Amino acid sequence: MAEKVKRLVLLGSTGSIGRQTLDIVRAMPMNFKVVGLAAGGNLKLLYEQAKEFTPEYICYADSGAANKAARDNIASLDCQFLPLEEMASRKDVDIVVVATSGLAGLGAVLAAVKAGMTIALANKESLVAAGSIITAEAKKNKAHILPVDSEHSAIWQCLRGEKQPPRRIILTASGGPFLDYPPEQMKNITVAQALAHPSWKMGKKVTIDSATLMNKGLEVIEAHWLFNIPIEDVKVLVHPGSIVHSMVEFADGSVKAQLSRPDMRLPIQYALSYPDRLPNDNLPSLDWDNFSDLEFRQPDTQKFPCLPLAIETGKKGGTYPAVLCAADEAAVDLFLKEKIGFMDIPRVVDKVLQKHDSVTRPTLDDILAADEWARQTALETAGSISR
Amino acid sequence: MAEKVKRLVLLGSTGSIGRQTLDIVRAMPMNFKVVGLAAGGNLKLLYEQAKEFTPEYICYADSGAANKAARDNIASLDCQFLPLEEMASRKDVDIVVVATSGLAGLGAVLAAVKAGMTIALANKESLVAAGSIITAEAKKNKAHILPVDSEHSAIWQCLRGEKQPPRRIILTASGGPFLDYPPEQMKNITVAQALAHPSWKMGKKVTIDSATLMNKGLEVIEAHWLFNIPIEDVKVLVHPGSIVHSMVEFADGSVKAQLSRPDMRLPIQYALSYPDRLPNDNLPSLDWDNFSDLEFRQPDTQKFPCLPLAIETGKKGGTYPAVLCAADEAAVDLFLKEKIGFMDIPRVVDKVLQKHDSVTRPTLDDILAADEWARQTALETAGSISR
Repeated sequence: MAEKVKRLVLLGSTGSIGRQTLDIVRAMPMNFKVVGLAAGGNLKLLYEQAKEFTPEYICYADSGAANKAARDNIASLDCQFLPLEEMASRKDVDIVVVATSGLAGLGAVLAAVKAGMTIALANKESLVAAGSIITAEAKKNKAHILPVDSEHSAIWQCLRGEKQPPRRIILTASGGPFLDYPPEQMKNITVAQALAHPSWKMGKKVTIDSATLMNKGLEVIEAHWLFNIPIEDVKVLVHPGSIVHSMVEFADGSVKAQLSRPDMRLPIQYALSYPDRLPNDNLPSLDWDNFSDLEFRQPDTQKFPCLPLAIETGKKGGTYPAVLCAADEAAVDLFLKEKIGFMDIPRVVDKVLQKHDSVTRPTLDDILAADEWARQTALETAGSISR
Repeated sequence: MAEKVKRLVLLGSTGSIGRQTLDIVRAMPMNFKVVGLAAGGNLKLLYEQAKEFTPEYICYADSGAANKAARDNIASLDCQFLPLEEMASRKDVDIVVVATSGLAGLGAVLAAVKAGMTIALANKESLVAAGSIITAEAKKNKAHILPVDSEHSAIWQCLRGEKQPPRRIILTASGGPFLDYPPEQMKNITVAQALAHPSWKMGKKVTIDSATLMNKGLEVIEAHWLFNIPIEDVKVLVHPGSIVHSMVEFADGSVKAQLSRPDMRLPIQYALSYPDRLPNDNLPSLDWDNFSDLEFRQPDTQKFPCLPLAIETGKKGGTYPAVLCAADEAAVDLFLKEKIGFMDIPRVVDKVLQKHDSVTRPTLDDILAADEWARQTALETAGSISR
């Protein structure tokens, strides 16, 4: 195949998804070329990545004197230094990979959809908080949003070639490390316990969100925007093995599921290589000679109140989902710092949501204001409930 | 949707698949019109079907004086009486549904592929015995063969929209009624026990073939021809629930599966409605609120020798697969008549195969000769082993 090398920019290159994206590019240099790197958290790693992948463009958040050496190293690179939004909307780029966390990449995502780019979107917060704006701009400007989350990649793969919209989406959840944990001990869960996810290797924030099932709730809202399906038609099933990544039910009652070993590199590669599928010996295959039973259960919404909280918030719309994301991010941060307990996460988020005065057809400014308000209110709320 | 009504002819209308095809047509008269009916076994039912669906063409096998009243009734219908081959190749027909059993429909299938028709193929024997000829003629004449078997429909649905060929096909098998039966008691299985399939309602021949797993072996060969995949790349997994109807592994290691309640009307309808999917309240949906674990096991080739026997025969090719089909049909018939035991079925088939002198690039005549030879030899072999 004499396919053209795809030129990609990677926003958030030093995080978990960013690093795994570079693993894919490293394995298939004939298919992909990184022409832009952007990161904020780890300038030392960004510098190493830049030396290895020699991008044309670079963007870094200046995180103060602590990183001076790394910053100076980066500044000395033979690259063009661009703002995030410009890097995300360049005409000489084939795919923009958005692997930033939280709302840090929202401006870049909006710039990219307005420029009609193809975006491999690994950041769910931007869609949860600003789905109405992003999807409307994408439609208007013929931008393509390709999902990277394993569940949404599964749904996208199942929808491939189908002419009609899905009747129902079945989003699977591993259930996280506390699936079988005694309900009465949930409040004593430690940070170390919550960070030990049984099947997926991910960043800290999303690992905690997986343990509370908040992550699955956010994914329900994400699916709603990505696939234009009512939240009522998205069903969550717990599947501890993380082999079936999601399912789609069609108009005739037929269902398709996507399966693979839990490894984020597969959905990343699928988004990058789409519409092709590329052989990659680094990706693990399912072992059919030892293929075992696939377990499914209903989610326990009592033990994991974040799940119904997120779903109800998604149905309400307005600026509520932005508040959900921001309050959750603040609460998870407080939990990681051991300022609040595990079961305080849903309590804080719920209290913040209850205090919120939602804007029904929010602008970007409304969303950013709600985000800031929610973070502040989460801190205040946490202060009042803890200790 | 102001779609055109699809005109279909149905060969084998009185069998299990034929009757279920008519159930679909009955439920969606705006989508499908039966313009031709053909049957051999049950002229009384054929007459009733003709009165209900008022086809333009009819074809019936004259099965002697016993059916005189029904035959006279059919002869009195206001229809054009056509030979099977002509009905299968008419230009005023959109889909030819082949639901005949054994090799009875082979001539019609060949006529249809030569005429470049779209064929919904429920008869696996014609592909197993004459796959090389049928697929070559289909390619030459741009005929489309749409699978109706639930497993092959599943594979076809999973391949929908994919650009690249599959890396592996995983064919699921219910395992039949004797999955957990004690191996030492297999030889004493009665006809009534073998006809009681746990999940699928089917005709007698295919029900016995499901109990011996011969059916799965034939399906491996069928998959080889339908999807142009080496037999080595088709893996059989036992899945007692019959919810996952088969799976496809792609070049990147991603796997898609198709799921539904076990009901043949879904794959029949999918083949008829393709590329559309039609809502049909008569088709059962999966119950997501009570969705249970999906069980998988490796097949027991010791207890079910028909499975490896069929797979090895498929690899050998030539006229061997035709002999496999014919000897199996004869052996199953003898079992149903209580002339031989359940475990004599693989013994008879194996002995006939061992006696066979295969033709490597068979013509249609070679295949029909092998078929006849195998039936005769199966009777002789059974006579020598029984009692």
